Amino acid sequence: MAALTAEERLALIKENLAEFLNPEILETIINEGRNPRIYWGTATVKIAQLLAAGCDMVILLADIHGFLDNLKAPIELVEHRVKYYRFAITALLQACGVSTDKVEFILGSSYQKTPDYIMDIYKLCSLTSEHDAKKAGAEVVKQSANSPLSGLLYPILQVLDEQYLNVDAQFGGDAGLDQRKLFTAAKEWLPKLGYRQRAHLMNDMIPGLQGGKMSSSDENSKIDLLDPPDVVTKKIKKAEAAPKVAEGNGLLAYVEHVFLPVAELKGKREFIVSRERDGLEPLVYTTIDQLRSDYENDVNAILIDPKLTPQLLKPAVTKALHDILIPIQEAYNASKEWQDITLLAYPPPEKKQKKVKKIGTRYPAAGQAAVPNGAPDAVDGVAKLNLESTES
Amino acid sequence: MAALTAEERLALIKENLAEFLNPEILETIINEGRNPRIYWGTATVKIAQLLAAGCDMVILLADIHGFLDNLKAPIELVEHRVKYYRFAITALLQACGVSTDKVEFILGSSYQKTPDYIMDIYKLCSLTSEHDAKKAGAEVVKQSANSPLSGLLYPILQVLDEQYLNVDAQFGGDAGLDQRKLFTAAKEWLPKLGYRQRAHLMNDMIPGLQGGKMSSSDENSKIDLLDPPDVVTKKIKKAEAAPKVAEGNGLLAYVEHVFLPVAELKGKREFIVSRERDGLEPLVYTTIDQLRSDYENDVNAILIDPKLTPQLLKPAVTKALHDILIPIQEAYNASKEWQDITLLAYPPPEKKQKKVKKIGTRYPAAGQAAVPNGAPDAVDGVAKLNLESTES
Repeated sequence: MAALTAEERLALIKENLAEFLNPEILETIINEGRNPRIYWGTATVKIAQLLAAGCDMVILLADIHGFLDNLKAPIELVEHRVKYYRFAITALLQACGVSTDKVEFILGSSYQKTPDYIMDIYKLCSLTSEHDAKKAGAEVVKQSANSPLSGLLYPILQVLDEQYLNVDAQFGGDAGLDQRKLFTAAKEWLPKLGYRQRAHLMNDMIPGLQGGKMSSSDENSKIDLLDPPDVVTKKIKKAEAAPKVAEGNGLLAYVEHVFLPVAELKGKREFIVSRERDGLEPLVYTTIDQLRSDYENDVNAILIDPKLTPQLLKPAVTKALHDILIPIQEAYNASKEWQDITLLAYPPPEKKQKKVKKIGTRYPAAGQAAVPNGAPDAVDGVAKLNLESTES
Repeated sequence: MAALTAEERLALIKENLAEFLNPEILETIINEGRNPRIYWGTATVKIAQLLAAGCDMVILLADIHGFLDNLKAPIELVEHRVKYYRFAITALLQACGVSTDKVEFILGSSYQKTPDYIMDIYKLCSLTSEHDAKKAGAEVVKQSANSPLSGLLYPILQVLDEQYLNVDAQFGGDAGLDQRKLFTAAKEWLPKLGYRQRAHLMNDMIPGLQGGKMSSSDENSKIDLLDPPDVVTKKIKKAEAAPKVAEGNGLLAYVEHVFLPVAELKGKREFIVSRERDGLEPLVYTTIDQLRSDYENDVNAILIDPKLTPQLLKPAVTKALHDILIPIQEAYNASKEWQDITLLAYPPPEKKQKKVKKIGTRYPAAGQAAVPNGAPDAVDGVAKLNLESTES
């Protein structure tokens, strides 16, 4: 993309966000011509937009959390998964057409065991009531008397991470709204230690392909990073898409949150619905509003049959997904290193294991360690690497 | 004292304890001719006995806890108090007639900020439920939704301290029984991290001079380390001591827990009640049972008037206290360094401050920091350095 004005940068940062706390923090930085430094959970497309807007992105690879979430998973496994994440995230960002030069991967263990950090944990625990810690973590950490104490400690750590990652903002990723309370706590707590407040960006939840939330236990609710083309085709075919119903429609959500933004990052904001089958010119959408309107009215803008039906939309979504994912598949197939690390990170299951449903932390790599024997393309393995995925 | 047999060493270790969890851990060490390594809170006489029994004593000077208990107290003040403690504890042990060669002072900050320690905090927090952490700390940490989160973290730290101080046992000191649940937790939790179980020694609560518990808010309920002789005399004169009532009698508690054990450490177990005033031979007690029996029956063993009344007991207790404390006073007066550090550690109050009553941790130096402006001889300053004191 060409050099952007401050206004264009801010518009790109704000697009598709559910919420943006303290935008003035980033506005000031951008108006001064600097690059805000932001750290994130997941949600690759938004990250790509932030990069395109000239933000430096810090990706926290939470190896300690991954290890702690399931102490039975050996630390080596977590280390392998962290390496797998580097490959996957880099490939995804490249697929979105942005440079990854300004992406910095930071291991949690590189600073979460330092004397300064531990002293700040002690201090913040002395300054924070049990009630406030619970409130901050209410939506993201499992809470009952029998839950591990670490659940109360995680909000403390997540708040300190903003300071120790030296960022200007934290991006809540796909589970952004769940973290609203935590971000509010961060604003309150950091100044108690003499640290500055950060801005917070939150993506909205987007619906799964089967309606409702994306779910890591429902393979068909989402597209996984390394799903082969035929699997992608099959999942979109199965996707819930009632005619004329735009609300909660996972396919429209993909267009809004993935295809249109990625197309813009690649140079031209458009989503094309082919009508070649019917010997007609393609429909070209540049806004989600127009597409949604056509879909809801079961007509199309130029009033020529066929109407904008699910049967027409699904192949268009499938093609757009293939355009993004096939190059990633090719990169994977071409990289012996990535394949090897995938096998180490997600060794094939030795036997059928009972799936344990759990609330994870929002840290990349954190939730993963809980499923030591997930296959490389299994839900738990790459769920968080969906183009836009939801925690579940 | 002369070289002791294993049986004599064990008897000395066990004397006056309220409870001793897993004695076999120390029995094995002593039967193998080794020195158990024990760490403590307070209760100097018992420490003196443990030293005499050939134990190595580790004294944790909890500077981090002291600082965290009141973040408004500057860290320098805590550091001064830690130095003050070194002087005071050493002087007290010397007053008990034992060598301090085998006493090791360890600063909490020397290991509580290391990567290994913090990883073990993270791990133990992942393995421990909120319920179990609360149960462990129920008697020693203030617990409500508005209490700081650090209260839930302290039991985790106290358990890890046993491992990181490399000890065979923890001595619960004067608030020993309060810590029973914590010690039980330590036995359960350490093996989860692959560490060995430790033995636990607990002193009984001893009554204050005014009946009931010793209290840091009631100056007359206890003798402070640097109380001048005339203050000691006055406090004993005021002490609650109903004739014939041994139960809850603070004077008898002093004889049992301080004077008889210290006399034994110095070479001869006896407590002398002078009757010079009446021109009679002194009463010489070698057991608390005989003294208690005489007091309860308001007679003395040899049935010669005057009976063993409070009026006779009080001067004897006063003299025994003077014998122990006056040399400490002299050491203090002779040491410019100790005086200087006392002034730095407990600077004279600038103005009258409202006394805040709080539950402290059991760490030496920890509770102290909460009263930044206590005078050198104030209750909060040296309450824990009583020969035998109680937390309150």
